[in-house]
Amino acid sequence: MTRPALLIGQSGGPTAVLNASLAGVIEAAQASGAFARILGLRHGIEGALAGQAGDLIPLDSLGATELEALAATPAAALGSCRHKLEPDDYERILDCFRAHEVRWFCYIGGNDSMDTGHRLAMLAEQTGYDLAVFGVPKTIDNDLVETDHCPGYGSAARFWAVTAQEASVDLAAMRTYDRVLILECMGRNAGWLTAAAAIYRRDERTGPHLLLPPERPFDEQRFLAGIDGILSRVGYCVVAAAETIRDTHGQLVALPPTSPEATDRFGHPLVAGTGELLAQRVTAGLGVKARVNKPGTLQRCSTAHVSPVDRAEARRAGQEAARRLARGERGGMVTLQRAQLGDYHCDFGVAPLEQVASRERKLPVAYLAEDGSDVTAAFRAYAAPLLGPAPPPLFWLA
Amino acid sequence: MTRPALLIGQSGGPTAVLNASLAGVIEAAQASGAFARILGLRHGIEGALAGQAGDLIPLDSLGATELEALAATPAAALGSCRHKLEPDDYERILDCFRAHEVRWFCYIGGNDSMDTGHRLAMLAEQTGYDLAVFGVPKTIDNDLVETDHCPGYGSAARFWAVTAQEASVDLAAMRTYDRVLILECMGRNAGWLTAAAAIYRRDERTGPHLLLPPERPFDEQRFLAGIDGILSRVGYCVVAAAETIRDTHGQLVALPPTSPEATDRFGHPLVAGTGELLAQRVTAGLGVKARVNKPGTLQRCSTAHVSPVDRAEARRAGQEAARRLARGERGGMVTLQRAQLGDYHCDFGVAPLEQVASRERKLPVAYLAEDGSDVTAAFRAYAAPLLGPAPPPLFWLA
Repeated sequence: MTRPALLIGQSGGPTAVLNASLAGVIEAAQASGAFARILGLRHGIEGALAGQAGDLIPLDSLGATELEALAATPAAALGSCRHKLEPDDYERILDCFRAHEVRWFCYIGGNDSMDTGHRLAMLAEQTGYDLAVFGVPKTIDNDLVETDHCPGYGSAARFWAVTAQEASVDLAAMRTYDRVLILECMGRNAGWLTAAAAIYRRDERTGPHLLLPPERPFDEQRFLAGIDGILSRVGYCVVAAAETIRDTHGQLVALPPTSPEATDRFGHPLVAGTGELLAQRVTAGLGVKARVNKPGTLQRCSTAHVSPVDRAEARRAGQEAARRLARGERGGMVTLQRAQLGDYHCDFGVAPLEQVASRERKLPVAYLAEDGSDVTAAFRAYAAPLLGPAPPPLFWLA
Repeated sequence: MTRPALLIGQSGGPTAVLNASLAGVIEAAQASGAFARILGLRHGIEGALAGQAGDLIPLDSLGATELEALAATPAAALGSCRHKLEPDDYERILDCFRAHEVRWFCYIGGNDSMDTGHRLAMLAEQTGYDLAVFGVPKTIDNDLVETDHCPGYGSAARFWAVTAQEASVDLAAMRTYDRVLILECMGRNAGWLTAAAAIYRRDERTGPHLLLPPERPFDEQRFLAGIDGILSRVGYCVVAAAETIRDTHGQLVALPPTSPEATDRFGHPLVAGTGELLAQRVTAGLGVKARVNKPGTLQRCSTAHVSPVDRAEARRAGQEAARRLARGERGGMVTLQRAQLGDYHCDFGVAPLEQVASRERKLPVAYLAEDGSDVTAAFRAYAAPLLGPAPPPLFWLA
């Protein structure tokens, strides 16, 4: 007779601290003594669909040294996935869970993953299978509802906040040659990361001088006029642009994608080359040289830019999920709740999975200056504590 | 009567430690007491051509705190340039030097800058103007002759060596979705940075699995066959590609540049989109999804990836130039000379400017595996000491 198991999976785009959450779940699960076995699921629910024994790996014996090394490694050590489930798939996943006596499922992911977890929990209940499901929030996009912020965001935000300043002094040095720099930021449909590029900005000498989040329709004439004004005033211009921006007709502003599929399996658009396209329009419209920095996956996996606050919270969020499961709680997603008074402090709560599933939290317009030239003090107050200590100021010769 | 001045300029593409060299020149010049005035030149020789007093700024009074902040700031605090000089320009620059009693010129830059310095020194001698010119090597491309390596390379190489490992674990986590990742590396005509991406590679789980330096003609069939083999064996593939690679007919493999000029003012080709083009060919040829990381200027300005060895050597190289000028030496470029025995250690020497001017040092073919799948132990022995301490190994679940 197989003993009951806690199964842990990772899902969606990796982050620099996703493995810190995994380490947190494992260590708190081990410490609780509540789970006869602790298993990891390879490539999220894809591993359960494949149903091979090798896709479930025992994590009981991981020691403190291994857990520290795991927590310091970016991406998803179990493997991640972006699998769009078909109706039949849920039954097959439950079959896998039954076969391995999985009674607790902890899924670390974004809103699609919470949707998956919610549907699994519902199906288990309908079919009389005893299964508790807890979600741990994870996304650099910071677009989950019901939580103050998402583990993973603080580190990717730090990446952009730090490197936008550095890329600005680089552009300032080359201003007689390169005039415009486009930073292409991830974030799916939300501008949280695009806005993050402005967090450490102190004055007009550094960018971004123009922010193009997905929430604002892209108007080419306004874009070029904005850059032209900044070039006149500052001499160079840094633009932070989301990789998914749409024109005033709702059409994506982008070159054809490199993938033969126009959308991913969740129906999210797959795009490439927004930065290149904007650079080409700048050169065609204003006759100046424009560069593109598109760090791509580097913005979500750079250990050098990990926020210590983010890493600690990611780990604690994982621990919280394991403790709630150990206490017998039946399900939900761990939420991060910021103390309303005093210095930055974060506690944990729980939200129903169905409240989070497949919903998105956009960047509030109140966090952006009306002309798109900066973020507001309210946004900095929200975001800066998530990034850890600010870097030393850049030095400018008078 | 104006007192004689040492003039310092920065030129060419910025690096993360170019200001460390500037700080080194200034502090050693101050300490020597040999120069009545120390001036900085805005945007290199462009500032001398503009000839306005504001383009020469006094640096005598910079204190220790300011010099430390300067040395920690990436890019070029004086401003840099890429100005292709016309024959008349040299006379105009000398006019500017005469007007401001510039008797020593220290130019921090690459081979084009050494060419400029050499021609200025020759013209000064022909016209009987007493001018000493010293060059300080600076380039992430590591392509200067007569020196073991170039300040700026170690930090950009560390950027690639560290981030290629991180991007590899990210791709490994997403292997059921994204199969190929192209890293687009700078380096002009030399593959030193492309090769650097492999320095911390330990086994096939991390990339780059394929290196495309400018020195090797690009053969699309061989490229696709190589990726196909790696996909079969490893399941995913990371490619490090120089932004300037050429096909077997010598044509650049790239999308049309974003700039209306096909070449810069030195006749070097300006390209954009090599990574995107390779990704599109992978998708078309193999039917798998391919991503591109093109960090652009970030690879040369990321303070988080600065090599402490590189920063210290950049500063010492600047000090060396100032000391040699203070001792009355007439000209040359500071060179870095590695101790042939024992632990890594670097001393300084000098080479004639004309030996360095406009020559390039390519990556030796002996530093690459024949099939382009890795660098050799000899390359790692050459490059690793320049990057500073290796990061902790990544953690993999068995």
